Amino acid sequence: MANITKKVSWSSRADDSNATGEGTPLLNGFEQLGYPRQQSGESISQVGRVNTVDMDEEITSDEDSLRGQPKEITHNEKLLSLKYESLDYDNSENQLFLEEERRMSYMGFRCLEISRWVVCGLIGFLTGLIACFIDILVEQLAGLKYRAVKENIVKCTAEGSLSISLILWAVLNSSFVMVGAIIVAFFEPIAGGSGIPQIKCYLNGVKIPRVVRLKTLMVKVAGVICSVAGGLAVGKEGPMIHSGAVVAAGVSQGRSTSLKRDFKIFEYFRRDTEKRDFVSAGAAAGVSAAFGAPVGGVLFSLEEAASYWNQMLTWRIFFASMISTFTLNLFLSVYHNNPGEMSNPGLINFGSFDSKSLEYKLYEIPLFIGMGAIGGLLGALFNTLNYWLTIFRIRYIHRPCLQVMEAMLVAAVTATVSFIMIYFSNDCQPLGPDQAEDYPLQLFCADGEYNSMATTFFNTPERSVRSLFHNPPGSYNPLTLGMFTLTYFFLACWTYGLAVSAGVFIPSLLIGAAWGRLIGILLPSISSSSSIWADPGKYALIGAAAQLGGIVRMTLSLTVIMIEATGNVTYGLPIMLVLMTAKIVGDYFEEGLYDIHIKLQSVPFVHSEAPATSHWLTAREVMSSPVTSFNRIEKVGTIVDLLSNTSTNHNGFPVVVNNAAGDEPAKLCGLILRSQLIVLLKHKVFVELARSKLTWRKLQLKDFRDAYPRFPPIQSIHVSQDERECMMDLTEFMNPTPYTVPQETSLPRVYKLFRALGLRHLVVVDDSNRVVGLVTRKDLARYHLGKHGLEELQLAQT
Amino acid sequence: MANITKKVSWSSRADDSNATGEGTPLLNGFEQLGYPRQQSGESISQVGRVNTVDMDEEITSDEDSLRGQPKEITHNEKLLSLKYESLDYDNSENQLFLEEERRMSYMGFRCLEISRWVVCGLIGFLTGLIACFIDILVEQLAGLKYRAVKENIVKCTAEGSLSISLILWAVLNSSFVMVGAIIVAFFEPIAGGSGIPQIKCYLNGVKIPRVVRLKTLMVKVAGVICSVAGGLAVGKEGPMIHSGAVVAAGVSQGRSTSLKRDFKIFEYFRRDTEKRDFVSAGAAAGVSAAFGAPVGGVLFSLEEAASYWNQMLTWRIFFASMISTFTLNLFLSVYHNNPGEMSNPGLINFGSFDSKSLEYKLYEIPLFIGMGAIGGLLGALFNTLNYWLTIFRIRYIHRPCLQVMEAMLVAAVTATVSFIMIYFSNDCQPLGPDQAEDYPLQLFCADGEYNSMATTFFNTPERSVRSLFHNPPGSYNPLTLGMFTLTYFFLACWTYGLAVSAGVFIPSLLIGAAWGRLIGILLPSISSSSSIWADPGKYALIGAAAQLGGIVRMTLSLTVIMIEATGNVTYGLPIMLVLMTAKIVGDYFEEGLYDIHIKLQSVPFVHSEAPATSHWLTAREVMSSPVTSFNRIEKVGTIVDLLSNTSTNHNGFPVVVNNAAGDEPAKLCGLILRSQLIVLLKHKVFVELARSKLTWRKLQLKDFRDAYPRFPPIQSIHVSQDERECMMDLTEFMNPTPYTVPQETSLPRVYKLFRALGLRHLVVVDDSNRVVGLVTRKDLARYHLGKHGLEELQLAQT
Repeated sequence: MANITKKVSWSSRADDSNATGEGTPLLNGFEQLGYPRQQSGESISQVGRVNTVDMDEEITSDEDSLRGQPKEITHNEKLLSLKYESLDYDNSENQLFLEEERRMSYMGFRCLEISRWVVCGLIGFLTGLIACFIDILVEQLAGLKYRAVKENIVKCTAEGSLSISLILWAVLNSSFVMVGAIIVAFFEPIAGGSGIPQIKCYLNGVKIPRVVRLKTLMVKVAGVICSVAGGLAVGKEGPMIHSGAVVAAGVSQGRSTSLKRDFKIFEYFRRDTEKRDFVSAGAAAGVSAAFGAPVGGVLFSLEEAASYWNQMLTWRIFFASMISTFTLNLFLSVYHNNPGEMSNPGLINFGSFDSKSLEYKLYEIPLFIGMGAIGGLLGALFNTLNYWLTIFRIRYIHRPCLQVMEAMLVAAVTATVSFIMIYFSNDCQPLGPDQAEDYPLQLFCADGEYNSMATTFFNTPERSVRSLFHNPPGSYNPLTLGMFTLTYFFLACWTYGLAVSAGVFIPSLLIGAAWGRLIGILLPSISSSSSIWADPGKYALIGAAAQLGGIVRMTLSLTVIMIEATGNVTYGLPIMLVLMTAKIVGDYFEEGLYDIHIKLQSVPFVHSEAPATSHWLTAREVMSSPVTSFNRIEKVGTIVDLLSNTSTNHNGFPVVVNNAAGDEPAKLCGLILRSQLIVLLKHKVFVELARSKLTWRKLQLKDFRDAYPRFPPIQSIHVSQDERECMMDLTEFMNPTPYTVPQETSLPRVYKLFRALGLRHLVVVDDSNRVVGLVTRKDLARYHLGKHGLEELQLAQT
Repeated sequence: MANITKKVSWSSRADDSNATGEGTPLLNGFEQLGYPRQQSGESISQVGRVNTVDMDEEITSDEDSLRGQPKEITHNEKLLSLKYESLDYDNSENQLFLEEERRMSYMGFRCLEISRWVVCGLIGFLTGLIACFIDILVEQLAGLKYRAVKENIVKCTAEGSLSISLILWAVLNSSFVMVGAIIVAFFEPIAGGSGIPQIKCYLNGVKIPRVVRLKTLMVKVAGVICSVAGGLAVGKEGPMIHSGAVVAAGVSQGRSTSLKRDFKIFEYFRRDTEKRDFVSAGAAAGVSAAFGAPVGGVLFSLEEAASYWNQMLTWRIFFASMISTFTLNLFLSVYHNNPGEMSNPGLINFGSFDSKSLEYKLYEIPLFIGMGAIGGLLGALFNTLNYWLTIFRIRYIHRPCLQVMEAMLVAAVTATVSFIMIYFSNDCQPLGPDQAEDYPLQLFCADGEYNSMATTFFNTPERSVRSLFHNPPGSYNPLTLGMFTLTYFFLACWTYGLAVSAGVFIPSLLIGAAWGRLIGILLPSISSSSSIWADPGKYALIGAAAQLGGIVRMTLSLTVIMIEATGNVTYGLPIMLVLMTAKIVGDYFEEGLYDIHIKLQSVPFVHSEAPATSHWLTAREVMSSPVTSFNRIEKVGTIVDLLSNTSTNHNGFPVVVNNAAGDEPAKLCGLILRSQLIVLLKHKVFVELARSKLTWRKLQLKDFRDAYPRFPPIQSIHVSQDERECMMDLTEFMNPTPYTVPQETSLPRVYKLFRALGLRHLVVVDDSNRVVGLVTRKDLARYHLGKHGLEELQLAQT
């Protein structure tokens, strides 16, 4: 039995929902672990790891082993963390809110709509500006670095002291990366990585702490500049999505809590519903600026965020995306001294493919699909390696200074490996007149030639990708490409997850482009008619798509992003087929990179659809029960005590009307949130004070908005002993029409309701509208389809 | 009082919902007209045309005039028709369904998923094939016609007997159009027009009779070939969307009711939910084939159809779109003897703009916005004229033979006007070596020259659009363009709404391109530096976008379609701004063309959002009440009588459990549909027969699927007097977990629930889960934002 007690201790159920800790803690905690009481007529034996157990039944250690003992769970991806709160995407339509809406005239709504557009325009503009800033700074810094190293190499090649060049290069790289890693590791760890998993979670409805703060943005921008300029195998595209999201969250609120400035504008938007809408616009603007893909940006946001399709919102998101790419384009054109020449719609652009070089024949399609499969395999390998690496990092490299040192080590190794590769490569190519390289390295090549390996390593990754797509046939020899693929694959894999701000898009594209081009070069030697495989650039593109798809496993949005980045619609079908194949093949072995990292964080992520075989589960099994609820007029002391109960850190409470008998469950009449109660307590909205009319004023929606989003913890609110005896009338503040379902509702139906409406809490009622349970986002996130059918994750307070 | 009786007679409330005809028919009918009982504390004076009235209050004729008397309502767009049924997008999760789902293994779900993909692939393939067929046939027929007329003109110009050419042209046109009009007017009127309004309605959830039948498709395809070959001012793009939708509805069901063939495949998809999903894929495939815009197609479907965002569905829709444009491209390339040259992604393609010619400067943007405003104005004018014309047609031209004659008249007039325009034009242009025209007409021009007016008129509209975009500066003189715009505007306006299958996209583009190019030509003469307005083709493009946006008022999808058709992402922002301006300006005067036609059909169309100022309305005001409901075990006679009641043609019935007292409203325990009851009655699923075990077998989901979608009317089901005394147990067949809301739920909340989940019925319950009312799609469709605030339409049995 000690075993069970331990289990309770590591996963005592306490979350959004509110199963009260009645009964013996042991049994109750046990029930709340997701083992529902067995219902007559319900067969739940299909579930993989879950067994039902009657509460009276003796629990033997033999049965226990079936239920997933703690010791079996080695990594925390078998758990869902309870430390993440959820967003309230569903409006609390309480009396205050309805009164405000009803007071508002038609013109008022028009003004609101216009200000939404203005905010989206601003988001797009600022995101574009940030992208432009990053791009220019990276180009300048990288230029400085490469020029310095190149001069040194030229000098040292003559002198025969190339090891000095290597040291110079490694030191330069490490210093850049050190700065980037220090600010991330010490000041804002959430700014590390690409930020895409975090934004995915946010848009999914999970409140990731500090993810949309101004400080995060600043660290992110500085960090990404450092890591790209430091020559790591990273891109600056992923972080743009995060940056756009932060910009959106900031602009839309009309104030900065960090800077303690309130501009008194956009107050209406100070709630989760509106904020999340703007954040989706920001993420889209980020994608748009990163890839010059406004439609892809919209689809990215929809794929990740949207549950309910809102036409006006989508249109606004599209506007933000358009403005973002336009701003970037405009400012870059001014920077390049060609004002008005709109040739830089994104941070990365694949260069213009002429339709001729992209032409494909029907019989090439199976080949493309084969490449998609390779991409899927390589992607799965990449993800698996990165997964192990991340586990290793979680266990051993969690101190900031260690993280900084690891980042510097990677930077130095990257420089060294690159240098060695270049040094030992003897792939010399003639230096043509239309040479696109900025820093062609002669090294040991004859005069008028340059080292081909250096074009891939001695360059920003964006330029390398473009070279692989567009350099004429024969620019690379197969050995160069093979070696490059191999080394870059491992470098990129090692790099992702370091404590630096950096994206994985560009390295993926680069790896894929390299092996794709390799296939393009090798094909003519296999096939008899060599003329038809004229352009290896085409295969580089397909390889890039396959590799990227195999790693991130995005589908719809990635297809559109790739189409927009290549600027060629006719290439849509091959890209789509490649991405589909890569996803199918990759999913067979391992999840997508972002999903792995989300899982490793134990984030309660609600997928877009209920697991296929979950029809036998009903709300009764999924819900937590019994539920802590309040009366319509409740004693302040009761409320404070319940909110202060740290073991049950609930966020939503049904409000009930007790019937005469009293002992049976009470009828539902509303739902109130922790945040609302906190504001009520802070303003001491007590019935007795209202009657005395001395200090009391009617609470307004504004008071809730002012407190949003950083509601004080209950501990900071002082309630005197006298006040504890007062009563609070929740009628005006609760949501009087929460969504409810009967107990028999199937899980897919509950799931659909949650996804479609963006719910956080769903009250389960019996046939007389009495509260019998509460389903939260986290309850749904527990169910997922594993290798052995439906699996159920455990909730843990970690 | 006679007046009121009349009112009841023309709009006795009988629809999806089921307000019972209890009480005096007069008062009850009156209440059901949308005048709710006044609720204490609810101010509903904000509503424009609606007043509340107490049931006891005497109704004076003076008050009556406030309430919208019948005589005030001249056009039926103030009414919503009750003849349209709704689709059930929400699954009826009854016991049979759940049992089936629970029986299904994980592999079963995988197979289903794969067959969904196969169906989507087939939809795309067939849609592409149809597009290809239409394109080739139109080209051949139009080629024959133009060659014949041209030869005749050449001959007659010499002979001076050009009137014979005119007559030949007019007769040829009229004959083609006659065939097209006859099949539409006599065989399948629903195949007339572009079909986009009908598909919009279908995707919105309204069952338009016969809209997705095979016969409709055949008439549509033949009709569109005839009308385009007949030289009408129409396009073949709009009808492709309808064709794609029909293909989807047919393929996904695995059988054809018209052909009486059942292939016994895809039986799982025989319900509204799945069918509608496939129809959205079909519509997307249609858009994709029409414009070579797969992403635009997806967004079109989402804009019109989607409520709940389903990632896998969107991905499948995208697949169908891709396959569709690919198929078209492939077959056209074979037809043009360039197999593999993928240069025809759509029926219309704008030709390839080189980035140089599309370059724009910042200061041109206000100009573009101005052009958007012009497009909005002209679009509103077009729509208003067409609206009047349609009213006229509804009143006077409703007999098929008259419709055919009108169509022939329009064809003859089109030919005549074109001929006169060409005849009196003296805009001769030199015949260059790279002449793109297929039929350059010399007419009275000097040798080596051709008549410029003829390039716009004497050509299929698609080619004319491309000429206007791409012909070098100086190809047209301003007068030609001005005259062309003017005549084509009125011709196109007259043509839309004829009893022929034809789209309005191409004429709109053509009008816009003409005046856009005109502006492009005139600009240099206004401005001092003429060099900057080098390319009038750019303005033609903007004009085309503006005009099309001004007429159809699509936003997101149209932007993407235009971007994809031009193949240039950098032009996204101007096109978006132009379309936005056109929509804003146009909406100020008149609705979009499709919306006008939807309104004229009195279709209960549920818009994507609740009217802004509708927060003061609650479910209590919106619902119909009292509700006809059944007991869980109900007498067959009662069911037959209620279903047979033609005055209350209800489709959804709450199932209740009566409490002991009996007189107060009963507790809700499920919802059953008319179609389900019909199947039950047909199979005589009576409790007594089940007990006797003689002829009885357990009803399966298959029985419901076999009857779908053409459930027999209740009148065709014979129930003997003995059987009337039997009982029916609805427990297994009803949906035990219908969505419910409390009475206080605000209209926007109800609206959101409907839109997000695709509901048809929503049960309104009191605080003890007792049925107090029922909200249907039609109840929501009644509310819309008019010029004077919130307006409420009436429901009528027309």
